[in-house]
Amino acid sequence: MTQTQVTLIQIDNYGPWTVTPEPRREVDLQTLQSRLYADVSQLVGNRQGYSFFGRFDNMITVTNGLDIADHALVQESIANRYPVTASMSIAVDESPVAALGRASDRLQDAGSAQDKSRREVLSGEPLAEADRTADDVQIAHFDVNDATGKYTDELNEFDTFIRIEQSYAELMRYMREAHDSLSFFVGGDNIIALCPSLSAAEYQDAIDHVNEAVDVELKVGVGQARVAQTAGMAAKHALETCRDDGSDVEFAEPAAHS
Amino acid sequence: MTQTQVTLIQIDNYGPWTVTPEPRREVDLQTLQSRLYADVSQLVGNRQGYSFFGRFDNMITVTNGLDIADHALVQESIANRYPVTASMSIAVDESPVAALGRASDRLQDAGSAQDKSRREVLSGEPLAEADRTADDVQIAHFDVNDATGKYTDELNEFDTFIRIEQSYAELMRYMREAHDSLSFFVGGDNIIALCPSLSAAEYQDAIDHVNEAVDVELKVGVGQARVAQTAGMAAKHALETCRDDGSDVEFAEPAAHS
Amino acid sequence: MTQTQVTLIQIDNYGPWTVTPEPRREVDLQTLQSRLYADVSQLVGNRQGYSFFGRFDNMITVTNGLDIADHALVQESIANRYPVTASMSIAVDESPVAALGRASDRLQDAGSAQDKSRREVLSGEPLAEADRTADDVQIAHFDVNDATGKYTDELNEFDTFIRIEQSYAELMRYMREAHDSLSFFVGGDNIIALCPSLSAAEYQDAIDHVNEAVDVELKVGVGQARVAQTAGMAAKHALETCRDDGSDVEFAEPAAHS
Amino acid sequence: MTQTQVTLIQIDNYGPWTVTPEPRREVDLQTLQSRLYADVSQLVGNRQGYSFFGRFDNMITVTNGLDIADHALVQESIANRYPVTASMSIAVDESPVAALGRASDRLQDAGSAQDKSRREVLSGEPLAEADRTADDVQIAHFDVNDATGKYTDELNEFDTFIRIEQSYAELMRYMREAHDSLSFFVGGDNIIALCPSLSAAEYQDAIDHVNEAVDVELKVGVGQARVAQTAGMAAKHALETCRDDGSDVEFAEPAAHS
Repeated sequence: MTQTQVTLIQIDNYGPWTVTPEPRREVDLQTLQSRLYADVSQLVGNRQGYSFFGRFDNMITVTNGLDIADHALVQESIANRYPVTASMSIAVDESPVAALGRASDRLQDAGSAQDKSRREVLSGEPLAEADRTADDVQIAHFDVNDATGKYTDELNEFDTFIRIEQSYAELMRYMREAHDSLSFFVGGDNIIALCPSLSAAEYQDAIDHVNEAVDVELKVGVGQARVAQTAGMAAKHALETCRDDGSDVEFAEPAAHS
Repeated sequence: MTQTQVTLIQIDNYGPWTVTPEPRREVDLQTLQSRLYADVSQLVGNRQGYSFFGRFDNMITVTNGLDIADHALVQESIANRYPVTASMSIAVDESPVAALGRASDRLQDAGSAQDKSRREVLSGEPLAEADRTADDVQIAHFDVNDATGKYTDELNEFDTFIRIEQSYAELMRYMREAHDSLSFFVGGDNIIALCPSLSAAEYQDAIDHVNEAVDVELKVGVGQARVAQTAGMAAKHALETCRDDGSDVEFAEPAAHS
Repeated sequence: MTQTQVTLIQIDNYGPWTVTPEPRREVDLQTLQSRLYADVSQLVGNRQGYSFFGRFDNMITVTNGLDIADHALVQESIANRYPVTASMSIAVDESPVAALGRASDRLQDAGSAQDKSRREVLSGEPLAEADRTADDVQIAHFDVNDATGKYTDELNEFDTFIRIEQSYAELMRYMREAHDSLSFFVGGDNIIALCPSLSAAEYQDAIDHVNEAVDVELKVGVGQARVAQTAGMAAKHALETCRDDGSDVEFAEPAAHS
Repeated sequence: MTQTQVTLIQIDNYGPWTVTPEPRREVDLQTLQSRLYADVSQLVGNRQGYSFFGRFDNMITVTNGLDIADHALVQESIANRYPVTASMSIAVDESPVAALGRASDRLQDAGSAQDKSRREVLSGEPLAEADRTADDVQIAHFDVNDATGKYTDELNEFDTFIRIEQSYAELMRYMREAHDSLSFFVGGDNIIALCPSLSAAEYQDAIDHVNEAVDVELKVGVGQARVAQTAGMAAKHALETCRDDGSDVEFAEPAAHS
């Protein structure tokens, strides 16, 4: 059974900041957002977690193995390097959706995302070290079958992008509603999902649903481990097996879980 | 009449690189991609252009005002700083979709995105300096009405994210099919579109379509100028007028076009 | 005759910031400083200028070709991306030392570097476009003869570093006192100097002085052009000629000046 | 007694790379070097170590607490993000100079810094976890007395810089020869030294020496701990005590050592 630790990282009062005293240059906002995400990705990733950019002003991260002190250091490091600060809320649940739900609730209870006085909240309860197990995190890595041959090398890049985005929009919605999972586009034709302990049949169901709804063929590799980094790397190797064997769904060997 | 200069920037042979000799750590890929985008954003932005991350391995940029030498410098600068190289293809058209279409075709003619021997292609024809006018680029800046009050402060962050993504997926598809425009999610609840000379009625049509299709209310500010930077900033100011006046569509004053 | 435009970029109130409310983590300060320098280097470099990190909180830049609006954009871009702001002061003189002297004076007149209320000063007079010539900037690129063979591959890295630092400390002092030049260590065994129109004999004099004072053998390539980027690149090519020919001082061909 | 673990990080074949096929743009080299240092600083710093930029192509880091696997991850992360690779050599000694000496020797034995075939060496023996103690690392943080009042606000910035550089060149040499310590300029008027267990009298001796040799007055705070991060932060707090009390040398309380 999974015990997914999710941390919601929200830039404090970001919307108002972007237009005060007047709208800031878009190029600087884009640079700020993408670099802040890269830094969060490194700060969390160096502690074996995974970060997703989400809407950039709200980043969703998988933080099994990070305690409150680790989170405080990430928060301090952001404040030391950027013109903005961030609030963080942590929750743990078998269901990633439920974990993020509680993390969101707690942050909303602390004040609005556009409340000037709500700054650098750090709340929530990380999974106690003693309660951690070898199977706490399940990660699924999806990609599109032959995306380069069928889309990138054939279609207008924007039409390729539309195909990828439609499949992502459909998968993210379906995986959330049917399978309590959080799915994130991570570039190219790749989507990474944070899942409870789903079965091969459930992954096949999601792939079939997307194929029927928007006519895009996906495949998926799945890994499960104590931390996101190990689970995610196992998922990537399993996806390579899909490529080699032409299969739709592959789970990493249990050995990879350790 | 617009004369949109679009440059497609494609990382060479990126898919194979990410899994050779074996899958690279996701945290490093995310860092590489987001920093490369931040750098492209700065390199193009410092020359008054706009960059969108798209799928990250394929970035779409608005480059009115950049000639071939400027593009070569961006290309060289990427090769000097990253473990990957990039190819670039430039095209100009009244319709942003048509411009990107020709840029894509030209790059595809030069070889597959996963061809090891196709590296650092730089092709296409920038708009001649003598042909440039004060109205070459139209940019529209959309956001969601009261996103913080209705979504961020109320819903699970992922459900907010799903709402924003569904509206983006619908808008990007509709604007491309009905209005020859390229739309990009740029973080938060913001979408920036690169458009031909659309009318207020056409923008209202797009907003109405998204509202009916996915029940999300958008508003939009529009700017038009010689370069993306000026058009985009005018669009942001027009969007502030929407906020102040409660209107759905606002065009920047012609004065802002110069 | 040179007309060197020098801009002093000073982080506002930086010392106090680094220890308020208590000392900030050194790793974050180092990251902030080196990234801020990298960004200034790009922002100025994309406009054909050169930037030197100096003491990091005071960066010295060569900005021929950048007007007040260009400087304002660099200043705004720093404020949009960092938790600190910067003041800038511009001066032009045949002598780089005199130019920096006036730029320093003007900034000091505006208030102390640790004055909380002195923020984002931007003052000075860039060289008028009409007064610019093809020979405004002379740049010299020094390196150590066979540094890898004699030092890096033979000595303890710190003893190599001490040798390089002693030669730099001596060269920077001598070039400033004897030849009105500003010299900067730029990594490895490389020093770049911003000079008035010095002769080959004057460069030989400086090389001989360092050799006698600290027993390190230098060589130098010199370039002169309208902007730092072109002068600096010509200097690098001239230094390659030194390497090929075993000479101590080489000037780039006038053709490289254009 | 200290047990300083030093890792020398050397960019492979960097000199030749910077001029192949022809000299690369200085602005890109400066950006590459300072960002690579920032990344090393973060990668090592997130594991409680300290990094110094040194000559940029040879970075010296304090890595107590990092094992071989941690080093391998830093090495892999560099290769995944930059167009260059790095070799690393680790050694431990009571004397930081002796530790770096052995690390240098081992790297030199593996091949020249400009040997094309010597890439990504990772060698040496980190301190075994069981042998680590609470006092393994001593760090001293020096700064210049009233640097802003006496220099920054009074002198030409370059003359200030010369004063700081002369004091650094003298301190680095003297601390290495007389006290087996490695000293690094870290920006502003700050120098951080990695030392064996020096006494207050030895620090006073170094301060007096610099004062006599180059007429610059320094003060120093000293911390000692299990890892560089804790020792360095204790040193910063001790330096604040110097500022408050007007003293020359302060040691952090033993409590800060834990």
